[in-house]
Parts: sequence; structure tokens; C-alpha cells
Amino acid sequence: MVNTLYLPELREMLAEENAAELREFSIALHPARTAEFMEGLNAAETWAVLQYAEPAVRQSIFPYIGRDKQIDILESHDRAEIADLVAGLPPDDRVDLLQDVREEIVRELLPLLPTEERRDILRLQAYPEGTAGAMMTTSVVRLGEDLSVRDAMTALSRQAEEVETIYYLYIVDATDHLRGVVSARKLVAAIGKPDLRLRELMETDVTSVTTLDDQEEVARKVAHYDLHAIPVVDSERRFVGIITHDDVIDVLREEATEDAQRIAAVAPLEESYLRTSLITLSRKRGVWLSVLFFGALFTAMALDRYDAALAQTSWLVLFIPLVISSGGNSGSQSATLIITAMATGDVTLGDWYRVVRRELVMGLLLGGFLALFGFAASFLFGPRHEPAHLLILPITLVLVVLTGTLCGASLPLVFRRLGLDPAIMSNPFVAGIVDILGIIIYMNVALNVFAWTS
Amino acid sequence: MVNTLYLPELREMLAEENAAELREFSIALHPARTAEFMEGLNAAETWAVLQYAEPAVRQSIFPYIGRDKQIDILESHDRAEIADLVAGLPPDDRVDLLQDVREEIVRELLPLLPTEERRDILRLQAYPEGTAGAMMTTSVVRLGEDLSVRDAMTALSRQAEEVETIYYLYIVDATDHLRGVVSARKLVAAIGKPDLRLRELMETDVTSVTTLDDQEEVARKVAHYDLHAIPVVDSERRFVGIITHDDVIDVLREEATEDAQRIAAVAPLEESYLRTSLITLSRKRGVWLSVLFFGALFTAMALDRYDAALAQTSWLVLFIPLVISSGGNSGSQSATLIITAMATGDVTLGDWYRVVRRELVMGLLLGGFLALFGFAASFLFGPRHEPAHLLILPITLVLVVLTGTLCGASLPLVFRRLGLDPAIMSNPFVAGIVDILGIIIYMNVALNVFAWTS
Repeated sequence: MVNTLYLPELREMLAEENAAELREFSIALHPARTAEFMEGLNAAETWAVLQYAEPAVRQSIFPYIGRDKQIDILESHDRAEIADLVAGLPPDDRVDLLQDVREEIVRELLPLLPTEERRDILRLQAYPEGTAGAMMTTSVVRLGEDLSVRDAMTALSRQAEEVETIYYLYIVDATDHLRGVVSARKLVAAIGKPDLRLRELMETDVTSVTTLDDQEEVARKVAHYDLHAIPVVDSERRFVGIITHDDVIDVLREEATEDAQRIAAVAPLEESYLRTSLITLSRKRGVWLSVLFFGALFTAMALDRYDAALAQTSWLVLFIPLVISSGGNSGSQSATLIITAMATGDVTLGDWYRVVRRELVMGLLLGGFLALFGFAASFLFGPRHEPAHLLILPITLVLVVLTGTLCGASLPLVFRRLGLDPAIMSNPFVAGIVDILGIIIYMNVALNVFAWTS
Repeated sequence: MVNTLYLPELREMLAEENAAELREFSIALHPARTAEFMEGLNAAETWAVLQYAEPAVRQSIFPYIGRDKQIDILESHDRAEIADLVAGLPPDDRVDLLQDVREEIVRELLPLLPTEERRDILRLQAYPEGTAGAMMTTSVVRLGEDLSVRDAMTALSRQAEEVETIYYLYIVDATDHLRGVVSARKLVAAIGKPDLRLRELMETDVTSVTTLDDQEEVARKVAHYDLHAIPVVDSERRFVGIITHDDVIDVLREEATEDAQRIAAVAPLEESYLRTSLITLSRKRGVWLSVLFFGALFTAMALDRYDAALAQTSWLVLFIPLVISSGGNSGSQSATLIITAMATGDVTLGDWYRVVRRELVMGLLLGGFLALFGFAASFLFGPRHEPAHLLILPITLVLVVLTGTLCGASLPLVFRRLGLDPAIMSNPFVAGIVDILGIIIYMNVALNVFAWTS
């Protein structure tokens, strides 16, 4: 929803070139709110408003502007001005942004940036997407362990406005290896002892990630240890940056969306739903739909084998969808419960025996329950002349629901064991397998009951 | 996975009553790590180790111990000792914990707590679960706007060890109304101007939530504004507490799990999968399975109406599972894409027209694609004598997949419009509706083609 509250005023200020009021607008609110109020402006107008803001303010608002508009601004304005803006953005946001900008523009921008920022961009760009290296920021407070509390406060005060977080001071040695961490909390509490060395204050048991760790691992550690930020070290254990909690929140939201999409057999989208092109969307969905279609062909083959039985007892056909959807539904319940329990760490591979035992009981309970309904349904639509045939549907439902819970629970475990993402063992897959088994079970139960009663 | 690395050493230290080493163990690592190393100990042993730690250290480790063991410790040890421990826990964790402890134990503990802590617990317990009030902590730095930077630093230093976050100083007036916020970053940067008043430093445009706001709304705001903590105000806009980013991370993980469970037609579990009793689990699954079963009964009714056509053309039966699973799969893809896009705010109700138009195109594209496969499948298993009948399956697939994408995309929007959680419009529901429509479409296409060709 676009906030249109101040749009007329903003446009009027722009028309009047009212510098005083536009500058006031740029600093009156939280940068995210300022950006919200500008949502209705086009890229050129947005940039015009930002021209009136001081460089630091402009840099604080810019990250909250929609990505499309950011790219538009970057691509269509004077490179030198843009380079100033880009140089002042947080290093991690900057790299993400440049990844979306046309390559030739980035090539023109890079030489205009200060050396340090340019190197930083090239270094961060080198890490594959989805790794700690690609998420981290390099703007961080590094101090030596011999510094006193007084000097550390001075250093912190000087850097406070620039660095990504002041919550932790990272203590490094001459070779950039991480020696320890001092929280701002501890430093502030120690103001009364200004001559204390950081060495006395620092925690030496530091939880860190390496540059190539997966972003899910980063999120897990930050959440588990309740951290504000986690340090990142390279393959030689040198301290290269930090990842802050706000980036972890973004990852958690992204991963939750991706998992949900995988569970529903959509290859995860890189962009938002509305911004993904129909071509990309149809490719990401079509691939899995086709795979599932070929899986479902086996149901046709299975039914083909029981042609004679079906032709002879036509009421059997009526319950085919009911049987396979009952199996599919109980299977996707089990699969989702196990996938989410593994994602939060509640279930690990070592729990497989407990999981299977629980799902065995669940399958019998739920199947037994549905069998009661199935018995009633048989009365209504099913065999009218042969009472024993009323048992076909109930027996089938118990077996099919049991098959559903066991397949649904064990396939994600098997996938995890094979080193694959359990979310790919998505519900449609479980349902596909259970569909085929369901038909085979249904037909065999029917044939056996026919044999007993004839 | 239980970390067994130090278990023998820990047990030996306990047996020897080695106070020095046990105290050393309690402070050597991050409290979360210390708790991990004790995972293999039972509740009594864990409590024995904690006896050797200083009270503040004990209070820092305790929140990381597994909930079962926490409850066991609370319920089975001397009330006075336990009261000391409980009094020192962070207010929000404390309330969560006491909710899980047997009521009579809580009644015995409360009178043993200091007045302030007791009132705090009773106040926080009054808020319904899932609201901002139930999530917040009351331990926070409150200062007046006339304080100087120097005095604020002193006040902060004094409280640093106790409060939940030092990242923000909250500026309140005499009636506890929030006047503004000063970030620790700004305060530290202003150390060079010790006589500046906080009034000059504070942000007055403060994003806050009210005590009864839903936890999802809290998470959305914290993520959107990249906050470390968000202030909570009561119905009279008085400042009552804050919610910190680590609690928001927990909420995001919890909500992702709940949404996934709802999508798969399981009523969300309150506890982890393995700790939920089989009775509870079968109730939470059985309710939805039964609802879906009755929905699926309509497929039997639908098929019953086309009894004659099916008896006459037996190959039609073979493709029933294939047709309904193709519709169900494309429907759950659409539903999940729209549910996740709404959860992240990428799609709002106002976008309904764009969504429906996109899914119309997607349905035709994907349906057309599957129709090609369907044509081939008809050759293999289908009508062998009547070439025109080869068109039945392809035409059906286009229409069924289109029905799937349109139902899948629009039902979550309709649910949101009615004020319900779109995740409840779970994939099995969409699949259930598409199953019935799929059968009706399939049979009508067949009857029409038969009519043309006869």
C-alpha cells in the first residue's frame, strides 16, 4: 500500500525548490518512514528530494527505497554523484544492490569509488550467494587487547556513527586473528575503571562462522546464542567481518519462504512473486509439475492392471479419489511435521526410530478413525447387495493412511540422510508415491475380499 | 545431538566436589555453550553443577537449559533457592517458564520473590499469549530528557549489567509517557560533549507497538525498521516495556513452523513434535483429516453421476488420479506462492487483479504444457479406436490446471479479505476443491467429445 499522505506537499516543495522544508522532511523521521512517505514518487522525484538532504542522511534513507527505484536512480544519474552515495552505504547492502545493477554501470562506477570501498566490494562480491561471506559487513570496530577502557571509549565514540554495530568491540592481534570480544555492555559497565585493559574484559570463547558457511547455519547460531552480531573468519581464521541480527532476520524470512515453496514443489523464486517474470515462474513450476505428472502416470498403469476388477464392480471407481486423497493428506501432514521439526532442530536423524514408531501409532489411530466414516460412506454409495464388501473401504483406509504417515515421515529423514534438503521431499512427492501405493492397496484389498466371499 | 565431550570430566568433578574446577567450568564459555556441555546430565546433576556457580552466572546459564530439565529443577528443589534463581532471570523468559511449571509450585514460589519481581510476573502473565505484552521485558533503561550526556553515561554504566539491552535509552516524562529514544550509538558518539542534554540527542519519531498487538505485527515492524528493540506502550500510551531482536527471531521461527503446519492441514502444535502427546497430535490432525474426508466424499458423489459414461468407456477411469493430482499440484503451487508473498508483504489484497491475471496466464501455459504429455499418455493407455477421443485428456488437463491455479491463488486472497489467516486455506483444501471440479470437468469434456464424434 503506497502512503500518499504527504505526496502533494512533497511535490509542491519540489516545484518551489523549497530547500529548507525538504531538508527538514529528510531528517524529521526514521529513514524507513521517510522512504515510505516517498513511495508514491517516481525515481527522478525521489532523487530530487534526496538532493536536498545531507550526504549522510541521503545514505541512511537510500537503503529503504524500493529496489526498482534504487536501480533506476543508480543507472540514470551522474556517475560521480552516484559513486559518492554508493561509497557511503553499508558494505553488505552495497554489494547486494550492485548485484542487481547492469554490469556496465558497475564497471563505470567502481573506478570512481575510494580505493578502500572498491576493494571491499570486490572482496565481498567474490563470495557465493547464500554464504556468510556474501552476507557480512566489513565496517566494524577492531581494537588491540592492550587498549584501556578509557581509550576504547574514545575509539568507539569516534567510530560510532560509521560502523554497523557498536554492540561488540572485536579484539584482534597483529595478524588480524580474533582474540576476543568485548560487549558494549561490559565496556560501559567498566567506565568506572578507566585504566582496565580490554584483555581483562574480553570473552575469549567467541562463537564465529567462516566465510563459506551457509546462511542457514549463520541464522541458527545467532538465534541459538542470542547474539546481536556474529564474527566471520576466513579459511585461515582471520577476522574479516560481522553479520548483524537484522540480516539474520532477513535470512530467516527468506528461508521460511523458500522452504514453503519447496514443500509445494516450486523451485524457490529469487525475487518477489509479482516481480518474477511469467517465463521464469512457468519454468520453476513446470519442471516439478512435469516430474509429478510422470509420477502420476504410474497410477494409470496401476489402474490398468486392475481393469477387469473395476469393470466388474463399478462402485469401486467412486472411491478412488477419496482413497488417494486420504493417503495424500495424512502423508503431507507427517512430512510437514517432520520437515519443520528438523528445521528447528527438534528432530534429528538419530530420532528416526522414535519418529517411525510414533507415526505407526498415528497412522493406525487416524486410519481407524477415517475407517469409521468410510464404513458409513460405503453404506451410502457402495456395494448394496454384498454386506462383506462394506469392509473393503474401511480396511483400505486404515492401510492407506498408515502408508501415508510412514512414507510422509520417513522420506524427509531419508533425504536428510542422503545430504539433500528435506523440504524438497515436498508434499506433492509424498502424495504422488502414496497415490500409487493407495491404488495398489485398494485394488488388492478388494480382490481379496471378493475371493473370500465368492 | 547431545554433546558428550566433557560428561565424564563433569561427573568426576561432581563426585570429587571439586568446587574450583566446577566454578571455572561455569564461567569459561558462553552460557549457551556451558548449557550444551551439560546436556547429557540429568536435572539433579545439572542443578548440582549450577550450585557451584555464582548466582549471576547460574542465572545466565539457566535460560539455555532444556525446558524439561528447567521444569524438573524448579519443581524438585528448595523453594527459597529456586526463588532466588527465578528472581534473577530476564522478566520475559521468567514468565514463559512459569507458564509451564505446575500451578501449585508457582503459587508457592510467588510469595518468596521480591515484591517488584512478583508484581512484574503478575503483570506480564495478564497478557494473552502471542501478544506484544506477553513477549516484552520490563528491564530497560528509562531516563529523563533533562539529563546530560555525562549523567546518562553514568546511569547507563550503573544499570548495564542488569537491563536486557543497552542499545536504546528510553526517555520518559513524569507520567511514564515515551518522549523519545536515544541510541547508545548516539550517546557514545556524543561523549565529547558531556553537557549536552538528552533532549537534543533523542529521536522523537519512535516506532512502537501496543501491549495487545499480535507478535507477527511486532516481528514485521522490527524487521522493517531494522530495530534492535521496539518499545511497548499500553492502551493509555504509557511506556511499559521493550521487545528485543532475539525474541523477534524466536517468533519468526515459530510463525514459519506454524504456517507450514497450517498449510499442510495440521492445527499448529504448542510444543515440539516429539514432546507433543499422541492424543494431542491425533486430535490436531484428525480434525482436519475428517473435514477433508467429508470434502472428498463429494468426489464420490460427482463420479456417481457419471456412472454410465464410465461403465461404457473404461479407459477414462485410468486417468482420474492423474487429472486430479495435476490440478491439485498446480493449485498448491499457486496457493503457496500467494500465501508466502502475502506473509512477506509482497502481495496485498489490492494486487488481486494482477495476481488473478498472472495465474490465468500461468494456468494456460502450464496446462498447455501438461496437455502435450497428456496427448502422449492417451496414445499409450487411452482410446485405441477413436482418434478424436485422444483429445479428451489434453483438453481436460488445460482446464483442470487452469482451475487449480485460479482456485489456489484466489482462495488465500478471499480468506485474507474475510479477515482469516490465509495459511488455513491450506493446500489440501485447495486440492480437495480442485479434485471435485477436476472430476466434473473431466467427465463433461468426455461427454462432449463423445457427443461430437457419435
